[in-house]
Amino acid sequence: MKSKIKLVENMQFVGTADSGHGVIMDAPPSVGGNNTGSKPSELLLTAFGGCSGMDVISILRKKKQEVTDLEINVTGKTAEGHPTLFTDMHIEYVVTGRAIEEDAVKRAIDLSLDKYCMVGNTLGKAAKITHSYKIVQEG
Amino acid sequence: MKSKIKLVENMQFVGTADSGHGVIMDAPPSVGGNNTGSKPSELLLTAFGGCSGMDVISILRKKKQEVTDLEINVTGKTAEGHPTLFTDMHIEYVVTGRAIEEDAVKRAIDLSLDKYCMVGNTLGKAAKITHSYKIVQEG
Repeated sequence: MKSKIKLVENMQFVGTADSGHGVIMDAPPSVGGNNTGSKPSELLLTAFGGCSGMDVISILRKKKQEVTDLEINVTGKTAEGHPTLFTDMHIEYVVTGRAIEEDAVKRAIDLSLDKYCMVGNTLGKAAKITHSYKIVQEG
Repeated sequence: MKSKIKLVENMQFVGTADSGHGVIMDAPPSVGGNNTGSKPSELLLTAFGGCSGMDVISILRKKKQEVTDLEINVTGKTAEGHPTLFTDMHIEYVVTGRAIEEDAVKRAIDLSLDKYCMVGNTLGKAAKITHSYKIVQEG
């Protein structure tokens, strides 16, 4: 798997990986950027949520759960000083739907975090990952 | 730092982090997606290249190096089986410019990888990271 990241101007870069989709990255003005794109460090959190979200929605659909919405909130805590790095991450799943079974949600999350999610498995070697979930039942 | 990742449809998610920029993520058709956006796992490589690229260009500019182009190639090797994760990453820097000093390039890369780059510091806890560079001198 590979990604090519090219400088555009100032602190703006575009990264294009195997899938062919480009991602604009930039730094905030406080460190000399123009805030035209994602901060690289926040992309780690976004990637984690997307990766695990794809697992969870796939598994819930296989389990015939009628999910109408899925939102994932990932927060990351960083260590002070240098070298800076993420020390803790929390991932929260908000599953909305009709007659959603809690056991199915728990099982889907466990399968993703213990087995399938490559991003979570990689980040879990570096940071302590905790998780939680909410189920919103629709009428 | 946080990111909110929302299901759009099928396997398509949009992640929006603190900076306010949205990133579309999707899976390839082979696993039920429509390939409308970045794969989450490749976003890790992209984030790494962007993070370190911002460090390197900042440091080279401070060192008065006349950089006209900077390209970063990040490759990742994954372990077979479950749980899958990145075991090795290689980051290559291609610095193009006029009278670029090799020592300045080496020092900028070392500072980024040993100290400043939060994404690299985090991923370096999970995977073995190696690096290389090429300098392209312009006439």
